[in-house]
Amino acid sequence: MRLGFGGVEDPADVEDLKVRISKTLDDTLARQADVLDGISEDLAPLMDAVSDLLRGGKRLRAAFCYWGWRGAGGGDIPGIVSVAAALELFQAAALLHDDVMDDSDTRRGMPSAHRRLAALHRGNGWLGSPETFGMAGAVLAGDLCLSWCDELYAQADLPAEALAAGRSVFDRMRTELMSGQYLDMLEQVQASTSVERARHVILYKSAKYIVQQPLLLGGTLGGAGPELLSAYDEYGRALGEAFQLRDDVLGVFGDPATTGKPAGDDLREGKRTVLVALTLERCSPAEAAQVRRSLGDPRLDTAGVNHLREVMRASGALDAAEDMISDLSARALSVASGVPAPARDVLERLVTSATVRAQ
Amino acid sequence: MRLGFGGVEDPADVEDLKVRISKTLDDTLARQADVLDGISEDLAPLMDAVSDLLRGGKRLRAAFCYWGWRGAGGGDIPGIVSVAAALELFQAAALLHDDVMDDSDTRRGMPSAHRRLAALHRGNGWLGSPETFGMAGAVLAGDLCLSWCDELYAQADLPAEALAAGRSVFDRMRTELMSGQYLDMLEQVQASTSVERARHVILYKSAKYIVQQPLLLGGTLGGAGPELLSAYDEYGRALGEAFQLRDDVLGVFGDPATTGKPAGDDLREGKRTVLVALTLERCSPAEAAQVRRSLGDPRLDTAGVNHLREVMRASGALDAAEDMISDLSARALSVASGVPAPARDVLERLVTSATVRAQ
Repeated sequence: MRLGFGGVEDPADVEDLKVRISKTLDDTLARQADVLDGISEDLAPLMDAVSDLLRGGKRLRAAFCYWGWRGAGGGDIPGIVSVAAALELFQAAALLHDDVMDDSDTRRGMPSAHRRLAALHRGNGWLGSPETFGMAGAVLAGDLCLSWCDELYAQADLPAEALAAGRSVFDRMRTELMSGQYLDMLEQVQASTSVERARHVILYKSAKYIVQQPLLLGGTLGGAGPELLSAYDEYGRALGEAFQLRDDVLGVFGDPATTGKPAGDDLREGKRTVLVALTLERCSPAEAAQVRRSLGDPRLDTAGVNHLREVMRASGALDAAEDMISDLSARALSVASGVPAPARDVLERLVTSATVRAQ
Repeated sequence: MRLGFGGVEDPADVEDLKVRISKTLDDTLARQADVLDGISEDLAPLMDAVSDLLRGGKRLRAAFCYWGWRGAGGGDIPGIVSVAAALELFQAAALLHDDVMDDSDTRRGMPSAHRRLAALHRGNGWLGSPETFGMAGAVLAGDLCLSWCDELYAQADLPAEALAAGRSVFDRMRTELMSGQYLDMLEQVQASTSVERARHVILYKSAKYIVQQPLLLGGTLGGAGPELLSAYDEYGRALGEAFQLRDDVLGVFGDPATTGKPAGDDLREGKRTVLVALTLERCSPAEAAQVRRSLGDPRLDTAGVNHLREVMRASGALDAAEDMISDLSARALSVASGVPAPARDVLERLVTSATVRAQ
């Protein structure tokens, strides 16, 4: 499972916001580090794993939350930056637990937290299994992030009524993301080939979570009316799915230098993406059997990867995915044009960035 | 690691409260089940694992929270029952993740959540490892409980200022429990033999979490003054440690019919308890070497368990642990006598229950 996505160029406004989000996260983590230090200095490696993870990331959820607020007429105040930063803590928790569930080696270009903690165990020659220690530590690190996310939300300097109203979105987002993660696991273990099911999982695991819910949270906090919220809803759903589809395409056809992952890794991991489902729907029975055999094969070599790519191209699945991305982007762009400035410009630019074929 | 504790008889008031806590939890889970059903019926096994886990439990944290509120002059209103129930959701999350970290087979007399989900995977003949699927599902189930705990707290029908004041305790409790869990892991892997370190871990993993923080949360929500909060602090710290020490003793000397665990299981798991530390401190070097070899040996037989028990008795470690329990209980009882009725009576009875040698 991958929860981030690549290929987005950051507009300048987003870049500026990123700096302020990072500052808020740094302050929050410094406060929590004091709490942990007060308990025991042995907790430092746990804190380091969280801090290092939070140094990276595109802060996309934070950006959509912030611009959702601005679009609803909210001012550029610290309270909304706190809520936006809280979403990044939630995302960090999701990544920490996701990496444990997938047993991933790396995250954001660094060893994953459970690998780091396993290395700590090994380096000290401690008793028992380094892997178990690393897994348990990363689960706890994720739990800490979930708690700190909630803390940051509750303490945000925004009117109590606004925070109470935003909770319905905040709570729903958390439940839906965990649910989407479980459904995604089910897709992999059931080796689902349904385009419809794959799109349903995308909706809960990525589309709603990356764009729609952060936007709706910002909008709700800012007191957006039903019309604007409905626009956010549609924009978010469309752009979120377009982003995820682009990520799926990049996962197979992308340049490793851009994606940060070895070419074909998604295929070796057996990811059941919409692109895969479209391929299985369109290729011949013999090709489909071959695709099923290759998907999830950890020893799949370059020739095997190239063959799968060719089947995706020749079957028309790649074109179909690109068509879906174009349609979804066009819809998001059309909705964004109705959002009040200055949010409109940023939302439009984010659509454009997402439609770029970074390959 | 064990987060609950045994041997406590429930006074009638506590029993009545348990019914209301269970009702609140049932209502909460029914609401969340509707949300999950709206996403996908495939989420039912995840929901079932959470519901079944929450049907059990002594509701001790909830009780201390409730009586902390009553002791501060708070009335018998639904809002405090909601907050108390939220603590049980937090405890469920801790248990779900704890069982994953320890790879435990059972919890509250039933198969643990990750085992249940692994069995679901196996029964359906799904792809991949049943164990990995079970582990990932249980991590997500715990994450859901953390989110729902927070949701229940935030929605509790109590004055906003009270809830805001209580957050400092609520937040600290969560951070400290996760930290305590990590320190507990460190104790096991470092095979620590220090009484002082073992007591430090108990403080954060159990003593504060079982009694002190729930009491302080209830008290803070109820607007308790510094004197009462200080009494709760001292009572909670002492009784929590006494409870945990009793649990440690029962873990070695308890009747399996009462503890729900096979005799000597704590020894086979290599739990680094205060009782173990006291033993290593007092026995001969030859005995200490033997204890170290036996602790954590999964094949330790009845004769081996009996031998360890004999070393604990003969070295005076068991008596020392019982003396600590007596001293701590006396301190808690003395503090409880100064708390306003009706909380005083319940707090006193809970001390008495905890000091009973249920063996």
